[in-house]
Amino acid sequence: MKRVGIIGASGFAGAELMRLCAGHPEFEVVFASGDSQAGTPVGELYPSLAAAYPTTTLEPWESIPGGLDVVFIALPHGASQTIVPKLDASHILDLGADFRLKDTSLYPTWYGQEHTAPELLDEFAFGLPELFREDLLGATRVAVPGCYVTTATLTLAPLLKAGLVEPHGLVVDAASGVSGAGRAPKPGTTFSAVDENFTAYGLLNHRHTPEMEMAIGRHAGTDVQLLFTPHLAPMNRGILATCYARPTGDESTEELLTVLAAAYAEESFVVVSEAVPSTKATLGSNSVHITVRRDERTGWVVAIGALDNLVKGAAGQAIQCANLAVGLDEAAGLASAGMYP
Amino acid sequence: MKRVGIIGASGFAGAELMRLCAGHPEFEVVFASGDSQAGTPVGELYPSLAAAYPTTTLEPWESIPGGLDVVFIALPHGASQTIVPKLDASHILDLGADFRLKDTSLYPTWYGQEHTAPELLDEFAFGLPELFREDLLGATRVAVPGCYVTTATLTLAPLLKAGLVEPHGLVVDAASGVSGAGRAPKPGTTFSAVDENFTAYGLLNHRHTPEMEMAIGRHAGTDVQLLFTPHLAPMNRGILATCYARPTGDESTEELLTVLAAAYAEESFVVVSEAVPSTKATLGSNSVHITVRRDERTGWVVAIGALDNLVKGAAGQAIQCANLAVGLDEAAGLASAGMYP
Amino acid sequence: MKRVGIIGASGFAGAELMRLCAGHPEFEVVFASGDSQAGTPVGELYPSLAAAYPTTTLEPWESIPGGLDVVFIALPHGASQTIVPKLDASHILDLGADFRLKDTSLYPTWYGQEHTAPELLDEFAFGLPELFREDLLGATRVAVPGCYVTTATLTLAPLLKAGLVEPHGLVVDAASGVSGAGRAPKPGTTFSAVDENFTAYGLLNHRHTPEMEMAIGRHAGTDVQLLFTPHLAPMNRGILATCYARPTGDESTEELLTVLAAAYAEESFVVVSEAVPSTKATLGSNSVHITVRRDERTGWVVAIGALDNLVKGAAGQAIQCANLAVGLDEAAGLASAGMYP
Amino acid sequence: MKRVGIIGASGFAGAELMRLCAGHPEFEVVFASGDSQAGTPVGELYPSLAAAYPTTTLEPWESIPGGLDVVFIALPHGASQTIVPKLDASHILDLGADFRLKDTSLYPTWYGQEHTAPELLDEFAFGLPELFREDLLGATRVAVPGCYVTTATLTLAPLLKAGLVEPHGLVVDAASGVSGAGRAPKPGTTFSAVDENFTAYGLLNHRHTPEMEMAIGRHAGTDVQLLFTPHLAPMNRGILATCYARPTGDESTEELLTVLAAAYAEESFVVVSEAVPSTKATLGSNSVHITVRRDERTGWVVAIGALDNLVKGAAGQAIQCANLAVGLDEAAGLASAGMYP
Repeated sequence: MKRVGIIGASGFAGAELMRLCAGHPEFEVVFASGDSQAGTPVGELYPSLAAAYPTTTLEPWESIPGGLDVVFIALPHGASQTIVPKLDASHILDLGADFRLKDTSLYPTWYGQEHTAPELLDEFAFGLPELFREDLLGATRVAVPGCYVTTATLTLAPLLKAGLVEPHGLVVDAASGVSGAGRAPKPGTTFSAVDENFTAYGLLNHRHTPEMEMAIGRHAGTDVQLLFTPHLAPMNRGILATCYARPTGDESTEELLTVLAAAYAEESFVVVSEAVPSTKATLGSNSVHITVRRDERTGWVVAIGALDNLVKGAAGQAIQCANLAVGLDEAAGLASAGMYP
Repeated sequence: MKRVGIIGASGFAGAELMRLCAGHPEFEVVFASGDSQAGTPVGELYPSLAAAYPTTTLEPWESIPGGLDVVFIALPHGASQTIVPKLDASHILDLGADFRLKDTSLYPTWYGQEHTAPELLDEFAFGLPELFREDLLGATRVAVPGCYVTTATLTLAPLLKAGLVEPHGLVVDAASGVSGAGRAPKPGTTFSAVDENFTAYGLLNHRHTPEMEMAIGRHAGTDVQLLFTPHLAPMNRGILATCYARPTGDESTEELLTVLAAAYAEESFVVVSEAVPSTKATLGSNSVHITVRRDERTGWVVAIGALDNLVKGAAGQAIQCANLAVGLDEAAGLASAGMYP
Repeated sequence: MKRVGIIGASGFAGAELMRLCAGHPEFEVVFASGDSQAGTPVGELYPSLAAAYPTTTLEPWESIPGGLDVVFIALPHGASQTIVPKLDASHILDLGADFRLKDTSLYPTWYGQEHTAPELLDEFAFGLPELFREDLLGATRVAVPGCYVTTATLTLAPLLKAGLVEPHGLVVDAASGVSGAGRAPKPGTTFSAVDENFTAYGLLNHRHTPEMEMAIGRHAGTDVQLLFTPHLAPMNRGILATCYARPTGDESTEELLTVLAAAYAEESFVVVSEAVPSTKATLGSNSVHITVRRDERTGWVVAIGALDNLVKGAAGQAIQCANLAVGLDEAAGLASAGMYP
Repeated sequence: MKRVGIIGASGFAGAELMRLCAGHPEFEVVFASGDSQAGTPVGELYPSLAAAYPTTTLEPWESIPGGLDVVFIALPHGASQTIVPKLDASHILDLGADFRLKDTSLYPTWYGQEHTAPELLDEFAFGLPELFREDLLGATRVAVPGCYVTTATLTLAPLLKAGLVEPHGLVVDAASGVSGAGRAPKPGTTFSAVDENFTAYGLLNHRHTPEMEMAIGRHAGTDVQLLFTPHLAPMNRGILATCYARPTGDESTEELLTVLAAAYAEESFVVVSEAVPSTKATLGSNSVHITVRRDERTGWVVAIGALDNLVKGAAGQAIQCANLAVGLDEAAGLASAGMYP
């Protein structure tokens, strides 16, 4: 068994890591932190974890034992820059934004502050196994991409790499469940505010934008520019991204689907199909569903992807990366079957 | 009191007409049909109407008395082509698609069948008061536009009329609550299928597309071409349309907002604001909320509109048109305040 | 037009008063307070009210003008005890708990503090028109009962008054939508906490218990003792109370239904029927739906009632009382038809 | 690996069996039937299963191969009476009602028809491991109890066995998510009908009543009589039962909790706590949460239990029983951690 620590177990991504580790054949959680909740039994904060972790209590992160095999960090952006330099662990997987962007000039622009540990950026592999698996085999430091980024990147990157759509003028119009906003109560995340509501937010300047451009561009080997419009849907989990691009040639829907299917032919968590993806098909699983269409009438290509933001968009993908990092079966502890209904 | 008949009162738009007429100071429902439910008390099919209509029973539509002041038709497309020629009523308001498109060649393409009463098309005014009010004053026949069309058209038309965005290459990416799919149970409309789910449907060829192009184009005085992608959100009511367009000049967000605000300055049901619209702000009301942004970075204009699909997108707009047709206060019986939460 | 003030317009009951007054033919809101939100335009805090109240801004309650015709108070318990003595208004309707219980000894037990204005208790009529209408005609001070109390009382009181069930050993098992918990974000009211969840709360000692016992007992002319178990359902609005009682005689379901129907024969907002009530049938309306059953097998009577907690359970009932108080049609400004779906 | 067949894989319980078997270390689904959907790929009917079962197609049940290790049957009541006699399998686990009640006279009363294979009733063990584990070790035929029955029985049975509450006059007031009503679209299960709604159904005569009385009574060794009132809550999954009983002695809340905790001290899926159970704490897991209270004021004992109706209330419990039947770790393939949010 690998000895695992989770920093930030009081948040949703951290709690999802706890849930997935409880079912993982080789991971044993020996430490869980939650600074604002230190001293609280995990099963009291999350009754859903009471049966699986009857004796685990949240601690301050500084109490983490040295020499753990795997440490996951699930904290708000800015926090892991400070923590990582102090950690002693074989494999560190950061679910936050701090080590994803390689261009340090992007941090002040999109996150409002200078990066405080820029020398560590190069140590971090980008944790999107389907596109950058080589970098993750045995990796000691991994920056796991966010939920929107994973969705848009897996949906668009193969089309761009194949040169089938223009890399500029892209539109990513996406909707997410509210768990993406975290556990802390806010005026915009109450049931009364969210239920029976659909709205847009973060117009023009959502922080995931440069990460999408970087990840897609790196895979495709080209500069990418896109407009990203996130929406909030009245549901807990799930992200669906509807992406609009201009075709470079005259490939049909069928040909575009063939390119996507070929790109993911060996991937056990990616389903490419003519069926329109739905977030619910991925609920609780590490799977991604993707389709694409060519509209002859208006000259647009529409590509759509869906996944569970807390699994493939966060905790599941982190475990997938950790499996690769420590040399286990990549799918260990991860469900490919979604919970329905 | 005006004597009102409702053909198709067993569907959601018809039931909403019943609800709104119950609170209308000048409309009295003297006839309600629901062919598949004929003989059923309205309050049994819709317990929500039991207190307001304790003695009303659904009848076959052929039982409608002659000489009514106002008749609303809320039936699936294709049905009112057959019924309208046989009706004797001062004012007929059709909530279906049969008399909206003026170009008869569009019916076979988008609805799969020839129009059977093309000679009546010219008698029907297009029931979008904010843009075509002149046509509705005293009108005897009105084709009330659908929910997606009303949203996209009110959001985009003033920008196109002012020549601020290109009329081609437009994208309308919209999400709707499930009531738009009607009352009849279908595999895709069960709670288990819809709840916690977000998905796209009708890719490339949704029937409301040509209606949007026609309505926007007519108001703007130009040919319009757009791609429309509808989505289903896990909620009962509400439509939000996020529209992408290429600017023709260099107007800022502020200037675009000013144009929209001026276009609707006299409209009591339209709120133009920098605030991002949400469907919930319009719940149960006849109001529409609109905003717009200019993205300097990518060169896109994003305009967003929201409304309640069963009120401003159907029954409420029909009553607004009927008020204009019979010479009442346009807002009679209609709420501008939404129900929250 | 009656000049109306609303103290506590930033809460859900206050916002619902704003919505209902916007559609009331004789009420004009000339003042709205929201202390923690003073200075905020109503339409910014509640975009749903932006179209109806484009120029209204929330003020501190002390700014209320003197001599208003009607003042509604919608504040947390404890607050109106302090405010009422300072108000100068013809009719005051308090939606809080401060003036409902007539026995001052109950306040320390159930609310944890002594009443600070016990001398005013007798001035307040109990605002449940269907049972105590006489007290409300021309009333200057009204304590409007809460949502659970209105539901349970209207459901059970006629059966007790007729002596058909035992007044002790009653069980009221009820479920409510989350709007009853108010607008302020709390860990237990986030979408993530409430959605897809059903739970009980306030076991044994919910504060509405003595109010139910008082109201039912007063109408029935007997001492009543009941156990009340509230539950939280994943919805915004609506309360359904399932009440269990022991029959005193051998009346059948049919006979019990007849007694209930007779009790409410003249009431326009109460629907008694063999149909099982559902909260959704009452959404947005002032209506109440009630049924009853006699189980021969186990010797229980089960009576069920449903209503919208923010309308008949709060703002709607307050307006119904105000209409009686100022001499208007009792139903003015109130819908009997619910919004569906 | 055990070779597993699933009869009725097109329904929700069957699909949940597919999901759980996909993550089970020793179960391999080699056959899945869905008569009305025969010929349909599983991943088309349930996209959630597309990644895990890319090549499985639903077949008619008669195509089942002989000699399977484990066969699960998840069909509407009445169907397995006919099928079981024709099956050749080492272990048969029926999730339907056909072999639960041992008293054949109850079938005409509660299910409206005579049992057609009464001679098989004695072969079936009752699949509630926490109370009847002995019967399940190596069992060849198991009747898995329903969701409501599992909830109410686990909540009440230890209190009755200990003689702490009266066995008559019990009330079980429960709420369920809509997945309990099955996959087939019905007027009462559309999103529009269920969302924002809470209602009761099956008043007085729900079919699970005699099964509860039998299971509780058998464990407690006494005749039990209870009134069961189910409600429908606007959620997919989850059952919460609030049970009312009269105490026989003067045990306090603390003493009652101690009795429950002792009864389940060795059970890995049962959490007894003073915390109030919520359905969401059990989502997707095989866990059950239970609490109890004594109300001194009114003399009632209130016991509350919650679980996921499709896991511990159906497919999960069936797998738990199958594990016992074939001699595996009872918890194999089952999560004790719930998915949250």
